[in-house]
Amino acid sequence: SRSINLAVIPGDGIGQEVVAEGLKVLSAVLPQDVKLETKEYDFGARRYHATGETLTDADLDALKQHDAILLGAIGDPGVPSGVLERGFLLKLRFAFDHHVNLRPSKLLPGVATPLAGQPEIDFVVVREGTEGPYTGNGGTIRKGTEHEVATEVSVNTAFGVERVVRDAFARAQARPRKKLTLVHKNNVLTFAGHLWTNVFNKVAAEYPDVTTDYIHVDAATIYLVTDPGRFDVIVTDNLFGDIITDLAAAVSGGIGVAASGNINPSREFPSMFEPVHGSAPDIAGQGKADPTATVLSVALLLRHLGHDAEAARIEDAVSADLAERGALPARSTSQIGDALAARVAG
Amino acid sequence: SRSINLAVIPGDGIGQEVVAEGLKVLSAVLPQDVKLETKEYDFGARRYHATGETLTDADLDALKQHDAILLGAIGDPGVPSGVLERGFLLKLRFAFDHHVNLRPSKLLPGVATPLAGQPEIDFVVVREGTEGPYTGNGGTIRKGTEHEVATEVSVNTAFGVERVVRDAFARAQARPRKKLTLVHKNNVLTFAGHLWTNVFNKVAAEYPDVTTDYIHVDAATIYLVTDPGRFDVIVTDNLFGDIITDLAAAVSGGIGVAASGNINPSREFPSMFEPVHGSAPDIAGQGKADPTATVLSVALLLRHLGHDAEAARIEDAVSADLAERGALPARSTSQIGDALAARVAG
Ligand SMILES: CC(C)[C@H](C(=O)O)[C@@H](O)C(=O)O
Ligand SMILES: CC(C)[C@H](C(=O)O)[C@@H](O)C(=O)O
Repeated sequence: SRSINLAVIPGDGIGQEVVAEGLKVLSAVLPQDVKLETKEYDFGARRYHATGETLTDADLDALKQHDAILLGAIGDPGVPSGVLERGFLLKLRFAFDHHVNLRPSKLLPGVATPLAGQPEIDFVVVREGTEGPYTGNGGTIRKGTEHEVATEVSVNTAFGVERVVRDAFARAQARPRKKLTLVHKNNVLTFAGHLWTNVFNKVAAEYPDVTTDYIHVDAATIYLVTDPGRFDVIVTDNLFGDIITDLAAAVSGGIGVAASGNINPSREFPSMFEPVHGSAPDIAGQGKADPTATVLSVALLLRHLGHDAEAARIEDAVSADLAERGALPARSTSQIGDALAARVAG
Repeated sequence: SRSINLAVIPGDGIGQEVVAEGLKVLSAVLPQDVKLETKEYDFGARRYHATGETLTDADLDALKQHDAILLGAIGDPGVPSGVLERGFLLKLRFAFDHHVNLRPSKLLPGVATPLAGQPEIDFVVVREGTEGPYTGNGGTIRKGTEHEVATEVSVNTAFGVERVVRDAFARAQARPRKKLTLVHKNNVLTFAGHLWTNVFNKVAAEYPDVTTDYIHVDAATIYLVTDPGRFDVIVTDNLFGDIITDLAAAVSGGIGVAASGNINPSREFPSMFEPVHGSAPDIAGQGKADPTATVLSVALLLRHLGHDAEAARIEDAVSADLAERGALPARSTSQIGDALAARVAG
């Protein structure tokens, strides 16, 4: 479409700084005839401290009007653990049915990895985003006593599993290697495991050109450090996806460059794009944060909205910038943003 | 005690081969006056294929008579996923209340790691073994239909969390660095997360000399590859422990050297010791398996039974053997076992 009406949520800590650079690059890459409108929202720890609110129904109604959402990072040590995660981030993912949580991992030339050698890494994790242990089901009895019992219920539906598995097969089919790996723990979590495995095998029959395999989540962490090149597309549950994508980010250049999309493929609600990293209060406000993950999240956003050429320009600019980094003196957040904006405008 | 009455479960695949070497080293290390009695049990895929049984009440009664159990590996591609895991391994852990699942990770000199550099790694994971998502709670409705719903319930009790947290604090206190890290996901799994966090903080007050911190499980996977030296003792939930200990094994020399104990500290029931690796059917019967993880599991077994000096002798022998490996031609399973037996007997 010829206009983008974007909701911008800088959030807390370095979120502010990296989002500014993401927008800088977005403005620079868009052709003259694409109108970019942005509206900033003050969600996060500041708003929570000021008002006690995380995300109201009115907020959701306002966000719904946008084509997409760009998020920096949410979180602050002054807010009790879980309040913003459940009250904002997860609430938004669930409210807008962001069932495809897309997390590409590509080790780009010039980027340091903690792994020995410089293994080839280029895979995408499709993490389910609206089910599993993230539903908030469960509870506590006899809280605070020696007889406390706390439960967490992982909820998995054929509907929810099938739609994300289908999305992953389609993505695998569109890639040169056409390989899809299911990651679960179906030998222990046998109820959810059977559902995932059966749905996966059923859909696989419709994609004979996609090679498939299955790996337990514990073994997957081993492969991610010993043979990450074996992965092309991974589809997995919400919690397993959370865990392995942090590891995937670490081995493929660190969370400074890891982008993600919380996608509703039906476009019924706006999708949200955000760096995998958090608000990093320890370095906030110092111009030390790397905006690359946010800039790459902007590329995912553009691809989701159909601006594929612009997305590719951003990705190429990032690759070129990273390849030269080793030779350059350290740059500030905005200097990296300027450099990327200059490249994409070029 | 001056006798050890050991149950031996070689199991499937390479289990047979590695257990033989574990017993070889055990016999060699024990002083003359310690009487070793062993009884072999045929649990695993072969028995399941022959009889349909995994572990009967009579089996449990027989195993109870022993001081400890040495397990090789259980599993075979011909058995449906979950049957032996739930029907044997987990059944045994639950029946014998193996609530402390102990998994040391130490990168020994001469051992290859997939990590760049040769970081110092020396930590222990204390994984809860009888609760969490491993309880088998949950179920399925409308199985096989497009309306299937499958749940998995993580069950966490103050009783179960406190006993394993106490065990971990005691272990941390006994180590030079005296540091304990709680790994959980308390910002999302808030019911279980609060229970774990509150119990951890309560017990911490009794151990003022132990330094504590908290890390989300996803972030823990990052540290395990970027800064594994930050860990001393980790205490965590059953599922998180399963995942991070495979990663820990991978970065600290691979599952060829990763040992584990399924411990009931009260000694009400026998504890079980096993390598972290599986039955590896692809290399079974070829003398290619590394028995080191099993031999180190024997050391954990001896320490559990109070034979600390012998445990240390085995660990020293393994260190010495590993340090020389790079200079030696490849050896078979039994050659490695012979070498270790010769060293401990020395
Ligand atoms: C902050 C938290 C709720 C979130 C998650 O667990 O999904 C984060 O870890 C992520 O991966 O986006
Ligand atoms: C085989 C399986 C049941 C087991 C587990 O998940 O605990 C294994 O992965 C382990 O870590 O010992």
